[in-house]
Amino acid sequence: MPNPSFDFFVEFASTYSYPAAMRIGPLAAAAGVAVRWRPFLLGPIFKAQGLATSPFDIYPVKGRYMWRDVERLCDDLGLAFHPPEPFPQPSLLAARVAHVGLLAEGWGEDFCRAVFHAEFAERRQIGEENVIRDLLAALGVAADDVLRVAQSDAVKAKLRADTEEAERCGVFGAPSFVTADGELFWGNDRLEQALAWASRGDSNSRSREAAIRNP
Amino acid sequence: MPNPSFDFFVEFASTYSYPAAMRIGPLAAAAGVAVRWRPFLLGPIFKAQGLATSPFDIYPVKGRYMWRDVERLCDDLGLAFHPPEPFPQPSLLAARVAHVGLLAEGWGEDFCRAVFHAEFAERRQIGEENVIRDLLAALGVAADDVLRVAQSDAVKAKLRADTEEAERCGVFGAPSFVTADGELFWGNDRLEQALAWASRGDSNSRSREAAIRNP
Repeated sequence: MPNPSFDFFVEFASTYSYPAAMRIGPLAAAAGVAVRWRPFLLGPIFKAQGLATSPFDIYPVKGRYMWRDVERLCDDLGLAFHPPEPFPQPSLLAARVAHVGLLAEGWGEDFCRAVFHAEFAERRQIGEENVIRDLLAALGVAADDVLRVAQSDAVKAKLRADTEEAERCGVFGAPSFVTADGELFWGNDRLEQALAWASRGDSNSRSREAAIRNP
Repeated sequence: MPNPSFDFFVEFASTYSYPAAMRIGPLAAAAGVAVRWRPFLLGPIFKAQGLATSPFDIYPVKGRYMWRDVERLCDDLGLAFHPPEPFPQPSLLAARVAHVGLLAEGWGEDFCRAVFHAEFAERRQIGEENVIRDLLAALGVAADDVLRVAQSDAVKAKLRADTEEAERCGVFGAPSFVTADGELFWGNDRLEQALAWASRGDSNSRSREAAIRNP
């Protein structure tokens, strides 16, 4: 039997993806679950549902709650949190660069965490190339090469494919976790439950039963 | 200093209100927090946001996830769960009757739990008067009297007032918890956090700081 694993669908513009990205490493290691980071874009998925932008912008009452909720969560976790301006931030460049690091090189996950920190702790503009250059430089990565590869057809196709696969898995928000047996968990507050699901041996049979009950 | 307390804004049509209603009693007792049950109606609040019905119906991808998520949660809690048909169920009558029990008599909370069980475990039609009569009878309550009071102007006004107060507190979904110092927590999965907030002594000062940071 393979080691437990799941896909971590993460979107750099997403507020709740920030605490999830900062928490997932040690929690997954403790649970013995291998995490595959899959940066994707929520924009196309929102559009397919008829949403022109973030639901937090479309429904301001919900948006106000979200800012306070994330602030409280980060407070409890000891994470700095300062809402970026504008919100949502354009996340396309960061997502492409992350895929370069995740595909072939060892700095992918560190870069993802660096993007979230820059965006939500330091209020930097993650859509700007010079910001991404700074983050890469701090990781000791040659930014020119990476930025060229990030704009290649192969990397663009990989980001598109991951976004399409997220949609096929039923993802409609971020962060989302999808286990090997196809269970979807949505939200930073479902991270522990997703890890427990992925690491328990009977998850496959439970999932089949569920599929029978909810055809 | 008064005992810690919070308001529990609960909507009988809401799926996530079901596990919250079943869990809140013992958890609140253990935390030393007094809970004021406040049945309210989400319909007017959704309408004010431009939503004609439940967001789970408007966004089917989110709806599909919700059914599976609630099923998993209830599974973990050992609660029977069978989605009602139709969804959402009309909750006006149950909410009015609950207010009768909560205002003047001792059976309000038991009735709330009985409604949720009938709706989500037994798939009964909670909008039908004969179903509500059955639930009252099982509690040893004289249904004729209660149903007459439930349709009185005073009870109608109380339900309207609680719905309006929920809206003033920023409530946009159910269940929601509002502490004495005005902190709003949304969702069954925030119940523990809301109890911790209500029972910790420094909550007032923390809230004032938050208000200063997020004017």
